[in-house]
Amino acid sequence: MDELIQKYQAVRDKMLAYRFASFIISWDSQTEAPSGSFEARAKHVGILSEESYKFSTSQETIDLINQLYEKRSELDDVLRYEIQEAKTSIEKLKKVPMHEFVEYMSLLAQSENIWAKAKNNNDWASFEPILEKIVAFLRKYIVYIETPKLKGYDVLLDEYEKGMTMKEYDKFFDTIKTDLVPFVKEVTSRELEYNNSFEEIPFPIEKQKEFMDYIMKVMDYDLSRGLMKESEHPFTSGMGTTDVRVTNHYYEDNFISSIFSGIHELGHATYEQQVDPKLDSTLSGGGGSMALHESQSRFYENIIGRSLEFWKIHYPALKEIFKKELRGIKVTDFYKHINKSTRSLIRTEADELTYPIHIMIRYDIEKALFNNEIEVKDLPKVWNQKVKEYLDIDVPSDKEGVLQDVHWAGGSFGYFPTYALGSAYASQMFNVMNKDFKVLKSLESKTTKEINTWFKEKLHKYGASMEPKKLFENCVGGKFNPKHYVKYLIKKYSKIYKIEKIH
Amino acid sequence: MDELIQKYQAVRDKMLAYRFASFIISWDSQTEAPSGSFEARAKHVGILSEESYKFSTSQETIDLINQLYEKRSELDDVLRYEIQEAKTSIEKLKKVPMHEFVEYMSLLAQSENIWAKAKNNNDWASFEPILEKIVAFLRKYIVYIETPKLKGYDVLLDEYEKGMTMKEYDKFFDTIKTDLVPFVKEVTSRELEYNNSFEEIPFPIEKQKEFMDYIMKVMDYDLSRGLMKESEHPFTSGMGTTDVRVTNHYYEDNFISSIFSGIHELGHATYEQQVDPKLDSTLSGGGGSMALHESQSRFYENIIGRSLEFWKIHYPALKEIFKKELRGIKVTDFYKHINKSTRSLIRTEADELTYPIHIMIRYDIEKALFNNEIEVKDLPKVWNQKVKEYLDIDVPSDKEGVLQDVHWAGGSFGYFPTYALGSAYASQMFNVMNKDFKVLKSLESKTTKEINTWFKEKLHKYGASMEPKKLFENCVGGKFNPKHYVKYLIKKYSKIYKIEKIH
Repeated sequence: MDELIQKYQAVRDKMLAYRFASFIISWDSQTEAPSGSFEARAKHVGILSEESYKFSTSQETIDLINQLYEKRSELDDVLRYEIQEAKTSIEKLKKVPMHEFVEYMSLLAQSENIWAKAKNNNDWASFEPILEKIVAFLRKYIVYIETPKLKGYDVLLDEYEKGMTMKEYDKFFDTIKTDLVPFVKEVTSRELEYNNSFEEIPFPIEKQKEFMDYIMKVMDYDLSRGLMKESEHPFTSGMGTTDVRVTNHYYEDNFISSIFSGIHELGHATYEQQVDPKLDSTLSGGGGSMALHESQSRFYENIIGRSLEFWKIHYPALKEIFKKELRGIKVTDFYKHINKSTRSLIRTEADELTYPIHIMIRYDIEKALFNNEIEVKDLPKVWNQKVKEYLDIDVPSDKEGVLQDVHWAGGSFGYFPTYALGSAYASQMFNVMNKDFKVLKSLESKTTKEINTWFKEKLHKYGASMEPKKLFENCVGGKFNPKHYVKYLIKKYSKIYKIEKIH
Repeated sequence: MDELIQKYQAVRDKMLAYRFASFIISWDSQTEAPSGSFEARAKHVGILSEESYKFSTSQETIDLINQLYEKRSELDDVLRYEIQEAKTSIEKLKKVPMHEFVEYMSLLAQSENIWAKAKNNNDWASFEPILEKIVAFLRKYIVYIETPKLKGYDVLLDEYEKGMTMKEYDKFFDTIKTDLVPFVKEVTSRELEYNNSFEEIPFPIEKQKEFMDYIMKVMDYDLSRGLMKESEHPFTSGMGTTDVRVTNHYYEDNFISSIFSGIHELGHATYEQQVDPKLDSTLSGGGGSMALHESQSRFYENIIGRSLEFWKIHYPALKEIFKKELRGIKVTDFYKHINKSTRSLIRTEADELTYPIHIMIRYDIEKALFNNEIEVKDLPKVWNQKVKEYLDIDVPSDKEGVLQDVHWAGGSFGYFPTYALGSAYASQMFNVMNKDFKVLKSLESKTTKEINTWFKEKLHKYGASMEPKKLFENCVGGKFNPKHYVKYLIKKYSKIYKIEKIH
């Protein structure tokens, strides 16, 4: 048995080494690689993926996993779960012809660059052909993978959040549609009054970076095990607990964007840095699932970062840096500014309240695409129709419409719904955490350490060593209930917009 | 035959993919990786190297190379040369017992760290034992590898510059000893007078970077296929012609350091970017040899970058950026400043004139060490004697003496001579280039394009597809002659120091 486990550790080590290479190469691609290098890079990445794929699916590896699977009752919990997961994913991988998978991977190696240019030039036509190829592969992929229990779009949904299917998501988004949409219509039809004279003033990027350094300290982000850099679309990327990196972006005419993108990514990073380091040498490190990851980023970004309590403590530091820009602006003005709700075009800049509607739109579109009700070429039109339907606004350009997100360029269909689910998870966690200590009051200590520690013990330290549902239920001590989310939003925004008893 | 070549192309592609991963990971390590990530990273890198090594030396790969070697007369020139080289290095690898090689590798994995500490603490005794082991291995290695034609230290010299042996180097360094050393003594005993009042003023780093942007344009560095970043020690690193990156460092109290490190690295980068793109998919891309690479970096750094003609054109741009700092400083003052010659202790900070003497000292010592005339324990004493003999200065500490360079800690004996050879190559190339067009006059066009193009046609485009000697002779249309170098130096420095007809 010890020998088996030792052999398996060698397999893990090799898989981790390939993952590491892939992490660093992709970080490089997204933050600084020269534009002319992407063609050659795509080829190299394709070959490395092939190597890793061949090894992960080699008869030797499969035999080893099967042997361990037979003896799973003798394994410790972490290893047992990992072997079960490995068994499932091997069965899955075997269903996809290798050359198609490799072709797809090298497609993805170029597609984000093509998307970035297309978005920049507001040129859907230059992106459409590669997106068509991506969707064509995924439709074939679904057919390879599907089982009587898991069919169509559910195959993709399950990849991003195990155990979540259209059945659950339809129910979740129905709650949002019924309970939240009318409230949002009421809120966004009102004017929010505050001193907004600073909105036309440019906020120098160097000062924004200075404030981000401050935020990193507040959130206790460990820079000996991470770094913050710039990229068009902020993201977090990591390997184990010792290398967890984030990116941010800076706009002179929208200084709050870098603040909340930063807090958001640092929420993800806190999760990864607080996993039990023992899991670093296993395949069960990192966050437990997409929705769980997003619950953390949105918890820090919205529940903490957009609370009045947070800014009562940290607004003086912001004002110190932007002396001139924020002269005469009160903390309540700033609080209203960062919680203003608007029916807007861009998901990543949407406010906390309208955000789930942006997700609902993407969910509807993806569902239609993989139910073969629409085609890639229809996307801009369908997109604009949905935005009109739910948000009642006209989309002036694809750049601000269908081209705005990187996800589809990366083949990530089925990913978006986890964002809204994550926010809903966060609200439920907030309610539970408040039973242990006064969460917002703890911010008076000037750091989020108490919150970080609670999450470490209740969620982070377990990494991905259990099923996501179990991790969530373990954290909140019960089942998921979307009502927490809707209640939280209605309470918060009723107060800001002084809407009493609409519900 | 076509099938064989196709199979070999697959081998090349795989080797290139691993090289690419290693390039990006090492770039990341040297420019931004978080300090806490190095332990985990070392493990991942070890596994990836092992994978790549196993593949390159697998029976399958060896058989394929042998089959192609048998049919080498039918191959095109590039492939034939590559197969011959592969055959040679396989034969070589087979001569060294695997366990000794592995032991040596793990020795080297620690030695640079031990050296860094020893240098820092000026503590030769803590470095001596591991250097003894390194030298002991290399002495054994020589015995394994040597042939009737290639014996002793020549085995190591040949590894860094194929075809160069003690016979050639002795002749080269003899010329330097006889013709250059007395001249250097004369020059360095004189005072160079100029307005040097700017030497005590800090030069802001942001402005230095601005000037580097200007230099990148002057040198026509293609930023769509490269980028410039910061690292402690500047270096160039690349993969094919589409991704060639450089680093630089910036000191407020030594602004010319970033200028000349930058031009130096951009010289290396120009070489790699101008290789025939067809070689990107072979193992014959990149520069032709250590000395050839160094000939290019030193050509741009010294022959071009430290010429009066260059600064007559570009000094106004420098003054425009450093308006305050360079007020009242004439181009001739600046020219003298960047060409001041001093008998100094540190090789990397030596000026163009004294530089080869630093190399000569290292060459003499290495030769004695591998001719078994001295032992590792004698190195500090011998070092200090040589520095006294050739430069007439006392070495105050091992830190500024025998411990100053990393090379020996990395097992790189035989490397140093290529630096001086590179400078000598550059001078001969300069003379030949001047027959085709007036090189320094061409700088009036404000770019180095004409020079770049000449090098592209005469040297760069061939990459590493021929023996280094052939590449050099092809470039200059004749044999190597060290007199060009000495003549160039004496002419330049006679003028600067107003020494007429000392020779």
